Amino acid sequence: MAKLTKRSVDYSQWYNELVIKADLAENSAVRGCMVIKPYGYAIWEKMQQELDRMFKETGHVNAYFPLFIPKSFFSKEASHVEGFAKECAVVTHYRLKNDPDGNGVIVDPEAKLEEELIVRPTSETIIWNTYKNWIQSYRDLPIKCNQWANVVRWEMRTRLFLRTAEFLWQEGHTAHETKQEAIEETETMIGVYAKFAEEFMGMPVLQGVKTASERFAGALETYTIEALMQDGKALQSGTSHFLGQNFAKAFDVKFANKEGTEDYVWATSWGVSTRLMGALVMAHSDDFGLVLPPKLAPIQVAIVPIYKSEEELNRISAVVAQIVDKLKQRGISVKFDDSDNRKPGWKFAQYELQGVPLRLAVGPRDIANNTVEVARRDTLSKEVVSIDGVDAYVADLLATIQENIYKKALDFRSENTTEVDTYEDFKEVLDKKGGFIMAHYSGSPEVEQRIKDETKATVRCIPLNGDKTPGKCMLTGEPSAQRVVFARAY
Amino acid sequence: MAKLTKRSVDYSQWYNELVIKADLAENSAVRGCMVIKPYGYAIWEKMQQELDRMFKETGHVNAYFPLFIPKSFFSKEASHVEGFAKECAVVTHYRLKNDPDGNGVIVDPEAKLEEELIVRPTSETIIWNTYKNWIQSYRDLPIKCNQWANVVRWEMRTRLFLRTAEFLWQEGHTAHETKQEAIEETETMIGVYAKFAEEFMGMPVLQGVKTASERFAGALETYTIEALMQDGKALQSGTSHFLGQNFAKAFDVKFANKEGTEDYVWATSWGVSTRLMGALVMAHSDDFGLVLPPKLAPIQVAIVPIYKSEEELNRISAVVAQIVDKLKQRGISVKFDDSDNRKPGWKFAQYELQGVPLRLAVGPRDIANNTVEVARRDTLSKEVVSIDGVDAYVADLLATIQENIYKKALDFRSENTTEVDTYEDFKEVLDKKGGFIMAHYSGSPEVEQRIKDETKATVRCIPLNGDKTPGKCMLTGEPSAQRVVFARAY
Repeated sequence: MAKLTKRSVDYSQWYNELVIKADLAENSAVRGCMVIKPYGYAIWEKMQQELDRMFKETGHVNAYFPLFIPKSFFSKEASHVEGFAKECAVVTHYRLKNDPDGNGVIVDPEAKLEEELIVRPTSETIIWNTYKNWIQSYRDLPIKCNQWANVVRWEMRTRLFLRTAEFLWQEGHTAHETKQEAIEETETMIGVYAKFAEEFMGMPVLQGVKTASERFAGALETYTIEALMQDGKALQSGTSHFLGQNFAKAFDVKFANKEGTEDYVWATSWGVSTRLMGALVMAHSDDFGLVLPPKLAPIQVAIVPIYKSEEELNRISAVVAQIVDKLKQRGISVKFDDSDNRKPGWKFAQYELQGVPLRLAVGPRDIANNTVEVARRDTLSKEVVSIDGVDAYVADLLATIQENIYKKALDFRSENTTEVDTYEDFKEVLDKKGGFIMAHYSGSPEVEQRIKDETKATVRCIPLNGDKTPGKCMLTGEPSAQRVVFARAY
Repeated sequence: MAKLTKRSVDYSQWYNELVIKADLAENSAVRGCMVIKPYGYAIWEKMQQELDRMFKETGHVNAYFPLFIPKSFFSKEASHVEGFAKECAVVTHYRLKNDPDGNGVIVDPEAKLEEELIVRPTSETIIWNTYKNWIQSYRDLPIKCNQWANVVRWEMRTRLFLRTAEFLWQEGHTAHETKQEAIEETETMIGVYAKFAEEFMGMPVLQGVKTASERFAGALETYTIEALMQDGKALQSGTSHFLGQNFAKAFDVKFANKEGTEDYVWATSWGVSTRLMGALVMAHSDDFGLVLPPKLAPIQVAIVPIYKSEEELNRISAVVAQIVDKLKQRGISVKFDDSDNRKPGWKFAQYELQGVPLRLAVGPRDIANNTVEVARRDTLSKEVVSIDGVDAYVADLLATIQENIYKKALDFRSENTTEVDTYEDFKEVLDKKGGFIMAHYSGSPEVEQRIKDETKATVRCIPLNGDKTPGKCMLTGEPSAQRVVFARAY
């Protein structure tokens, strides 16, 4: 197995190689569309399970809305069409026919749709057109639906997980009686995303709101969670949008309120996608391969037997069977890899590459001594422990690893978060170190655009928590209510 | 709430009304595409969970392949393109732009794709093009992937769940070293579907193979499960295909076998879809609404308080809280409906309509007597039982209901399965009674086609189990190896 490019040599190349070599995903024959391979999909399934549980615990239900959106729906919300029309897949025909010249099949010109259909890049329009029929009075509210689905945005430059033409995601779409309730929902959901990122992905995130230029097309306010990758670039990992009454007005969704008068419904939408897979890879992994947090690892423990004869293997297998049993009883996912076509060294490297949190090795000497070698993926450290009580030991260690991965990422973020007060310092820190830069700016779109043009850094968010001390714009000296987070971003 | 049309008056109308009124699904603004509403989706999620577990237990893993298929892929397998080209959604452009005449947005003629993309109607072609890179030697086999996905077939006449342009499904795609292994996989999976249909959906099915005319486009053999609906029509509920080496040859997927020579890989594919939702509705439900098997019911027990004052409600709620607690401890999903905007009678009708297997009613007299009224949805019978041990009573009763629903459907099928020996009898039974008709025929496509043209009945399957006595074709007198199942079908 050829080694990975080192992160220090070429971070971007390292990422691309790792996603392929760890069997997470690969490019398909269709431009910009990926194949998510079984190992990658197993991680995504674990993410889905936890998120789905959290959505249901916060009162949401799942539903499913059409893949296609009539073209005319798009134009109904002005900024929405502006944001999505330039990169969408358009269905124009509904039939192929045999090529009269004998070259396979061609599009049948007689099967042209009356109105073109857009493959959904996001579903606000089709969903609000549906909600119109579901909502008459305040008694029908709130509606809190989520859908797990595929969406398509015709991105020109794609990278596995981070930016693909088709991706998998969930999109929540809620409808409320009051502005206040909708804002609370928006905030609740960004909180759910932050909790998921930190507790399950082991990835610290900043919660904040976007500036107008970075808002979702059609939103009045976009909340975001921003994570810091190991190369010092930010990655937007989830967003929650307060949509005001924009979509209700576009699709004429009114309700009779408690006072008996009619009002437009208040809306939110929120989503995370397979982009989280890219964030997970980039947040924790190292030059040897993936480092997965135990809570999302499809295999938490791999056990490799070291043997020279079948007889040795049999003795080892008998002991391992008991360990496997005890680990499974604790709900730990474990794989005993007794395949005979690979050497232990190859297996060790493979589990390292695939980020399995713990690897146990058992040889004849271990059997004699009643011990097992336990190797941690996160610290690359090994220890020999007694087989008695190894299940409790492993359970504790998995919890420790989960914490350690988070702490390491948090420390990295602390080290790579810098407060600056002048534009000179800003540019210097950005070029020498990167990371999150906390700075004051006037809040004007012009200043924001100038900084972006000159440095490629953008305002990642105006943080919800932390230091709220006012100051002065690093460029213009104008007053600033609080520091915001700048970074170069994925 | 207006009553449902009775099944005996108009079965088709009854079905259409029930799907809408029970809040399972509705038509969307996009021709032929449905919205699966939260209650319907919750049932589908339960189906998915069980099926997914069964797939994993039989050694399969999930993955995800692109939504789009390049047009040229389609032509590579001759019968496949023949089967699907006539009803597919074709993406020809990747951008919209503002209409210069100011009428919203139009397709940008400059953003035409070099090669059109087909929205997948099924994924054999894109998957086998991918497998080509995954398979070099017999060590890479078998590959046993499943994907949960949406697919699109541009059906002209659509009905909610039964036939929609877009539907949700799972498609398994496996690759094998030998013909024998692939056939075994095909049979294993039709067995998994049969087990799911019978044990979870409470729906007896016949397992068999399709005749050539009803085979999947590209298969050498199609296995099917066929269920009988209450109107005497059959519904194909799941299929498993032995694809031979057709797709391996079309996409040039070879492997080095154990003997060191090259061979084409053997393939299977298998799928069930949201069509199962239609089957579930039609198999069990009655003139009052849905009848759901407890194992797939999102709400297994609904509890309705009967009260005149807040004080009464409080006393009832205190008692119900304990019942709810005990039921939840047994893993039973329960809803205490103390909403105050609807009367108990309305709630009773609503839970009846939505097929909740058990309804408990608790009033002041019950509290005084330490009793609760338990109403079964399947038999529409009621009983008053002691609150002590009601949780065990309910658990047992749910198991009984699951069995009873199956038994009722099985009895119905027995009563509506008829052996006939002459074409006269065949036509008479078909018109007077419908159902499954077990008859001999020559096996020739011409005879099959003639029967279809004259009676609209098709060979549903050549059963795998049951009577294998040879006989003579009811039309031609030619020899027949065994009776096959004829029926009119959805």
